[in-house]
Amino acid sequence: MRYIDAFNHFFPKRYFDALVESPAAQKDIGKRVRGIPALYDLDLRLKVVDQFPDYTQVLSLGLPMIERLWGPEKSPEMSRIANDGLAEVASKHPDRFAGYSATLPMNAPEAAAREAERALKNGANAIQIGTNAGGLAIDDKKYWPIYEVIEKSGKPILLHPARTREMADFVGETKSKYEICSVLGWPFETGVTLSRFIFSGIMDAYPKLKVIAHHLGGVIPYLEGRIGHSFDQLGVRTSDEDYGALLKSLKKRPFDYFKNFYGDTAIEGVRAPMVCGIDFFGADHVLFASDCPFDKEKGPGYIRSTIAVLDEIKLSPADKEKICFRNAQKMFGVG
Amino acid sequence: MRYIDAFNHFFPKRYFDALVESPAAQKDIGKRVRGIPALYDLDLRLKVVDQFPDYTQVLSLGLPMIERLWGPEKSPEMSRIANDGLAEVASKHPDRFAGYSATLPMNAPEAAAREAERALKNGANAIQIGTNAGGLAIDDKKYWPIYEVIEKSGKPILLHPARTREMADFVGETKSKYEICSVLGWPFETGVTLSRFIFSGIMDAYPKLKVIAHHLGGVIPYLEGRIGHSFDQLGVRTSDEDYGALLKSLKKRPFDYFKNFYGDTAIEGVRAPMVCGIDFFGADHVLFASDCPFDKEKGPGYIRSTIAVLDEIKLSPADKEKICFRNAQKMFGVG
Repeated sequence: MRYIDAFNHFFPKRYFDALVESPAAQKDIGKRVRGIPALYDLDLRLKVVDQFPDYTQVLSLGLPMIERLWGPEKSPEMSRIANDGLAEVASKHPDRFAGYSATLPMNAPEAAAREAERALKNGANAIQIGTNAGGLAIDDKKYWPIYEVIEKSGKPILLHPARTREMADFVGETKSKYEICSVLGWPFETGVTLSRFIFSGIMDAYPKLKVIAHHLGGVIPYLEGRIGHSFDQLGVRTSDEDYGALLKSLKKRPFDYFKNFYGDTAIEGVRAPMVCGIDFFGADHVLFASDCPFDKEKGPGYIRSTIAVLDEIKLSPADKEKICFRNAQKMFGVG
Repeated sequence: MRYIDAFNHFFPKRYFDALVESPAAQKDIGKRVRGIPALYDLDLRLKVVDQFPDYTQVLSLGLPMIERLWGPEKSPEMSRIANDGLAEVASKHPDRFAGYSATLPMNAPEAAAREAERALKNGANAIQIGTNAGGLAIDDKKYWPIYEVIEKSGKPILLHPARTREMADFVGETKSKYEICSVLGWPFETGVTLSRFIFSGIMDAYPKLKVIAHHLGGVIPYLEGRIGHSFDQLGVRTSDEDYGALLKSLKKRPFDYFKNFYGDTAIEGVRAPMVCGIDFFGADHVLFASDCPFDKEKGPGYIRSTIAVLDEIKLSPADKEKICFRNAQKMFGVG
């Protein structure tokens, strides 16, 4: 079977050097990323990829956090450096890297729309966006021109969870302890942002926008009953906002928008949730992805375990091909 | 098939009358609960139950929110009124109500431990606890005597999600809009509290404590990969707390504690998440429950759809009996 890995992470050299020297990274981001060499060392990364026959990666930046590291005066430049770096790596090794996704300086929305346009014209196969922009919800109107550009391109958004600073502070009291904020909070964040994309009207304004939610949709597929029945009753629990009118103004049932998103298989190689997630999105809306190199082996672990799970579960040959590479070919525009 | 419904909601009359007249309930809680008559009208509730042959309910209070409605000077008394009310309803209609769970005044921890002891001696079949106590995490040491009492009784905790006030405020910015806080935030809260029960040491201190997490474990089963692999790496992402030492101090792998919790089937009658959740907890750790009367029909909807899903999915006859009534018989001590 051929595999195109839709969502995995890498820092191109020039961007990585700037990252570890940035003031914001000095505290612990620098230390953390240095502990995973296949995240920035190209030779090591190629060795990881070469362990798997007929397997290529669409590269995404390590974390969509440009706006956390640099202010709006610097972030547009750093996005260009990151995106051009990924483009270069991918173009030099087309047999290992099927393509790349571009990252945007979300703390500079106008520059972000321009960078999306530039990167997509330059061949970017997707746009990676964090579930929040330095703590701000990304359904605000100021970000809508970005989604317009992406929809026009036909390329998908790769939606990556990002912890809000506000959440981190808040959870100081009840949630951040024990790293709950990243382990459970990230998939929750993903669900929150998908919901806001629907209820803010973004999905009605840009109906052809394709959103691939990392980690098989976060918490959404498991909460199928709630996003169905509970969102159908939107407004019943609230007295100070007229959500009933909002619900009526939407072009579809909330549930149907959720079903129209995409998920990737980056759930650390587990079986039952994989079946649940594929059942929710359907084989046309799931893409193979590994989250490489964030496994314990720091490279091949999740690629191997994700392939093993897909071999184990019941899928028709046609559906398996869609998930493993055909959906990626179509959505990313790769051969 | 016989069914014992482990988690569903009802307000006994004397408590309900006080609730709708309480100052805190005037705003919207009163309005909301009045909209669902089978939540407090016993005749209507009996008619709902009677629609299903060989089906009984273990009654739980409407919401575990006594501490939101009354201060610590009043909440112990209101808990007694609620618990004695449920006891009376259950004892008068044993053919419809197999038992009841008691609620505690969590804003008065010492009184809560005493009320747990009193109610359990009085025949309560479980203790219902919210995932937070008026916004405070419930793994704080001041609550541990409550868990000691419950563990000794052999009866389970029914863990019900509760929105924190802090969360509501926080999510004002990025999350509370569109009722995301209850639709997605509640199952997240459940996962947070289960995690804190493990990492705070409660499950090591009270290893026989049984916790039944409403809504089939909240988000936990779907995040199997993360609670496995990510919690195994606790401390790697954090620089200001020594979570590595905490991890070593636990008696088991974090994942194994999660697998040792229980879930109920109250997920609004959906199939794929039901399979996923039962796979995670195992048939010995799942109990039939409907969340009656919070369906659109305000009574029988989720009972019917949950029975239908359990009929549809592949379960051995022995496993199905465990889920539908045998686990409940054993854990609640009912005939």
